[in-house]
Amino acid sequence: MAAAPVSKVSQADFAARQDGLRAEMKKAGVDGFLIPVADEYQSEYPPFSARRMGFLTGFTGSAGSAIVLAEDAIDPSKTKGDKNAKAAAVFVDGRYTLQAKQQVDQTRYEQKDLTTDPVSDWAVSRLKPGSKLAYDPWMHTQAQVEGLKKKLDAAGIELTPVSHNLVDAVWKDRPPVSKAKVQVHGEQYAGESSASKRERVGKSLGEKGVDAAVITAPDAIAWLLNVRGGDVPATPVALSFAVLHKDGKVDWFIDPDKLSADVKKHVGKDVTAHDIKDIGGVIDSLGKSGKTVQYDDKRSSSWFHQRLEASGAKIVNGDDPTLLPKALKNDVEIEGMRQSHIRDGAALTKFLAWLDEEVTKRPVTETEVDKKLLSFRQAQKDFKEVSFDTIAGSGEHGAIVHYRATEESNKVLEKDTLFLLDSGGQYLDGTTDVTRTMVIGQPTDEMKKRFTQVLQGHIGIATAVFPKGVTGQQLDVLARGPLWAEGEDYAHGTGHGVGSFLGVHEGPQGIHRRSDVAFQPGMILSNEPGYYKTGEFGIRTESLVVVKEKAGTGGDTGKPPYYEFETITMAPIDRRLVDVDMLTDKELNWLNAYHQKVQETLAPAMDKKELEWLKQATRPLEREAAKTVAEVKGKFTGNIAATGGTQRQR
Amino acid sequence: MAAAPVSKVSQADFAARQDGLRAEMKKAGVDGFLIPVADEYQSEYPPFSARRMGFLTGFTGSAGSAIVLAEDAIDPSKTKGDKNAKAAAVFVDGRYTLQAKQQVDQTRYEQKDLTTDPVSDWAVSRLKPGSKLAYDPWMHTQAQVEGLKKKLDAAGIELTPVSHNLVDAVWKDRPPVSKAKVQVHGEQYAGESSASKRERVGKSLGEKGVDAAVITAPDAIAWLLNVRGGDVPATPVALSFAVLHKDGKVDWFIDPDKLSADVKKHVGKDVTAHDIKDIGGVIDSLGKSGKTVQYDDKRSSSWFHQRLEASGAKIVNGDDPTLLPKALKNDVEIEGMRQSHIRDGAALTKFLAWLDEEVTKRPVTETEVDKKLLSFRQAQKDFKEVSFDTIAGSGEHGAIVHYRATEESNKVLEKDTLFLLDSGGQYLDGTTDVTRTMVIGQPTDEMKKRFTQVLQGHIGIATAVFPKGVTGQQLDVLARGPLWAEGEDYAHGTGHGVGSFLGVHEGPQGIHRRSDVAFQPGMILSNEPGYYKTGEFGIRTESLVVVKEKAGTGGDTGKPPYYEFETITMAPIDRRLVDVDMLTDKELNWLNAYHQKVQETLAPAMDKKELEWLKQATRPLEREAAKTVAEVKGKFTGNIAATGGTQRQR
Repeated sequence: MAAAPVSKVSQADFAARQDGLRAEMKKAGVDGFLIPVADEYQSEYPPFSARRMGFLTGFTGSAGSAIVLAEDAIDPSKTKGDKNAKAAAVFVDGRYTLQAKQQVDQTRYEQKDLTTDPVSDWAVSRLKPGSKLAYDPWMHTQAQVEGLKKKLDAAGIELTPVSHNLVDAVWKDRPPVSKAKVQVHGEQYAGESSASKRERVGKSLGEKGVDAAVITAPDAIAWLLNVRGGDVPATPVALSFAVLHKDGKVDWFIDPDKLSADVKKHVGKDVTAHDIKDIGGVIDSLGKSGKTVQYDDKRSSSWFHQRLEASGAKIVNGDDPTLLPKALKNDVEIEGMRQSHIRDGAALTKFLAWLDEEVTKRPVTETEVDKKLLSFRQAQKDFKEVSFDTIAGSGEHGAIVHYRATEESNKVLEKDTLFLLDSGGQYLDGTTDVTRTMVIGQPTDEMKKRFTQVLQGHIGIATAVFPKGVTGQQLDVLARGPLWAEGEDYAHGTGHGVGSFLGVHEGPQGIHRRSDVAFQPGMILSNEPGYYKTGEFGIRTESLVVVKEKAGTGGDTGKPPYYEFETITMAPIDRRLVDVDMLTDKELNWLNAYHQKVQETLAPAMDKKELEWLKQATRPLEREAAKTVAEVKGKFTGNIAATGGTQRQR
Repeated sequence: MAAAPVSKVSQADFAARQDGLRAEMKKAGVDGFLIPVADEYQSEYPPFSARRMGFLTGFTGSAGSAIVLAEDAIDPSKTKGDKNAKAAAVFVDGRYTLQAKQQVDQTRYEQKDLTTDPVSDWAVSRLKPGSKLAYDPWMHTQAQVEGLKKKLDAAGIELTPVSHNLVDAVWKDRPPVSKAKVQVHGEQYAGESSASKRERVGKSLGEKGVDAAVITAPDAIAWLLNVRGGDVPATPVALSFAVLHKDGKVDWFIDPDKLSADVKKHVGKDVTAHDIKDIGGVIDSLGKSGKTVQYDDKRSSSWFHQRLEASGAKIVNGDDPTLLPKALKNDVEIEGMRQSHIRDGAALTKFLAWLDEEVTKRPVTETEVDKKLLSFRQAQKDFKEVSFDTIAGSGEHGAIVHYRATEESNKVLEKDTLFLLDSGGQYLDGTTDVTRTMVIGQPTDEMKKRFTQVLQGHIGIATAVFPKGVTGQQLDVLARGPLWAEGEDYAHGTGHGVGSFLGVHEGPQGIHRRSDVAFQPGMILSNEPGYYKTGEFGIRTESLVVVKEKAGTGGDTGKPPYYEFETITMAPIDRRLVDVDMLTDKELNWLNAYHQKVQETLAPAMDKKELEWLKQATRPLEREAAKTVAEVKGKFTGNIAATGGTQRQR
């Protein structure tokens, strides 16, 4: 969702950058170079100083890759008859197809789909056999390098690492690297000391015969050491690397300027801070002393694998050992998530009350919404920053899943359209991520039908009960079923994990067809089905849920454990968009109970006018046709005149 | 489900068999021997002549394994303090725990759970390092051998193949091997010629650089050659092996006595029949001529892998190449399945009508039910035999998932109990598998609640709509959700594939948490959620469904393809057990529409009395409380006297 605020750069500038890179390639004696969005931390949202693909091509999305080849390395027999063949390409996924077309010079780059036309296939379809394709081992995981190598080898193309990034030599006005200070994340928020975390994760390594693990994900280190940082927008992490030893001790590689005396004292004597440049030496010493070292080939840069291998260490491939422990929130973190969601829900609800009145008085634009919503969040206790760039999509913009309003795209929330608002906050005690879709004016029947189907999917997840061992790929159908029934779907996952004052996207759990991680109590997930009609409107209803054990199961009940989701997001769902007759009794009861809870929970934070709006927005929905025979009997035999019939509720 | 009718054998006989095997082990110079249920065809239901585990231990289940060790190979340091330690063990899964306890001499065999205590772990926990554990490579797949070998190697135990099965030397009164004649399965049933099947499957091998494939599953060969046989109860296959070449030619290894002139003419010149004993030579010649041969390491005996390896062939591991083509039924097979299900449904319905009256007049037993039901099936056109041993479980027997009534267990269908009846037939044009649960007398509220939850799960699958690519692990929750909601579940899969006049269990598709095969039009599956209360009652509602493309999607509609299930089983679901108030409108509508279709479809096959019963059994269910306001308005303003109010429907 995050997009770098690229300064105005002309097409000629981008051309010069590509030419400059080609000159660097020539100097290095290679025929091509790979430039992924990723940085050396494999962050989802790299800092501006590491957005090499953005610098080179102008593309600002969060996933993608570029490749630039030397013109004379192109095999003419391979491109014969292909008028569009170029010596460079960008690869993005379906979310970014339109955005990349606007941002990237299509006369200099072919544009391909990252999943159906992978980089390796394209390289093979262009390069002469015997060519050398270079890559920076800091920017790719070992799994990626091995995947590329296999395909290129088969085509006689050599994949070769370079010791410095070829883009950096061209990047003259590179933004300065962050020097943001590291902050202690107190136990009142973390719920467990760093020493305890280090000891138990270290012990789990020792138990499987591993001496140490390389940890390279900034949020993993933040969790392990109970620290937060300010190097990356929207995610409170400090960029650093760590080696966790089985005895719980840590070598921490971080810019020393970021460390205050407080932080040094907090991490204590079992955490040794090193400058990042010293990491090679420490890795080498692991190998020299014959250590068995765990490395995550899907999450850590290939550089670590290559250096470990060269050092003679025994490499065990395995998930980052903090991945699952970090996902299983403890009681303090869960309560912090609940409380931060109440404050965040209050901010969003105040905004919604404001918006509902404001749009009847004057034109309101998407970017104005973004600013106004931020002001409500900023007024909340312990709010630090947004957890991702707000998606405020009016009308057809709502159908662009990762839309971000810019000066150029900004538009007014028009009458009789839908408005999709996906936003979140970073609070000291939790991270939020919430989407609500509102009608401005009157909805069409189609809008109501689709909104109600999405809501039914949302309720399907919210009310799911399931035994131990069940995964996200098994529950996904509950969210999609109502749309599938009519041959419709949405092209994104139903749910992702969320951190505790950390990344708004966090593994390993998820709700989508490839998620084979079993749910466990304490996991936080988003529940966000949607529906998108290109060029017309978008709908998404997203709340966060926490996995908990169902009462009366597990423990000493004598029954096996069953789990359910507790919805912790507190904000009204637009009842004007609900077609009550489509809902089952169970669905209707859930919606009314949720709204009652939202009203009770948020009421204390509302002023008088806001409270009035909240009460209207959360009052129970009723069916016209669902009165029982007994009720209607009463009506027609007794007090026909008094009741006057039911009115359709909006 | 099938259980071999073992003749009366005394405990002393089984002891003598175990002792005899130990003597054979000594002669062969090995310290242990593995005896799985499987035969050399890896059949689900091996012929009686191949039921070595049954001969040795008395166990008659369809899955399991035994191991017998030499007493002096036991490592005393490993068994110290374990009073139950024995030099032999049987391994069965949860379905067979009780049955094995009754059938196997627990003083001579430890009994273990096949999944939680695998054979390899047990062998390691008993045998001295340096011991030799023998196995017959015909009886284990290559994947099993490699799995075993890895664990045993690590413990210093040698896994060693033997050239003859050590049980056979002890088995004096072994049943004769079947000589049943092979039958031609005409194109009017198969819908495609064998030549066409052989050509397209052979071509698919060639396209991936494979010269030939070893095919060892009897149903695969039956499908490929359009033949059926009589070597195995309940499944119309001939035991044989085949090598399919990429040009569509086949080497077929089969007892020549089974082949009539008709069959030889039918298979034609491109299929060369060989005696089974010649298979080694043909495999060797593949290797000698440097061929690339496909082998299925999860479905074919390790013997083939070992022989191919020794011959110098290049082995490519891959699924049996007929697996998916066989699962995708063509239009002729689908229509045959529909028609055979109508005849089978008529037989079952006639039986149900008979039963409903008979149980009010006199005691009826489980085994009597089995015989009576068979007589109704035998009266149907093209019926050949049952497709598995009937499960007729009265009261608490219904809770035993693979129950089979025996002389000892046989009991009367008592008043106010549930009766679970799972049965099926083999017809020339199709294979059926249907379960209905009936109340004898009056049900309790608990029975109705559970029956209705199972029915809701059944309807969840029956009404599912889903896009291309969706698998059984994604849909399983639709069947289990209503039970999961109350912390309940059933310990078996929701659905399995079914053959066309072939195996009642067929891969690769399924509906359960491990099934990652995408549904495709033409696949047949069972839809059989259940609920089992040990010691009280069992419920299962099973119909077969066929996957088809949803109208208005795929093809030239411009929309992506969506799929749905067509229920082809035709038999009433006991409406006396349905709690209407638990059903949603959609569920109630489905049940009423299904019953209407059952009534219309089966009526022509019923006599007058049966038709009367069918009409009662399939009349629409209505809710008391679900009358619309309009209906009730009409009632109370117009014709109150005429209608007299609604009655609770049973």
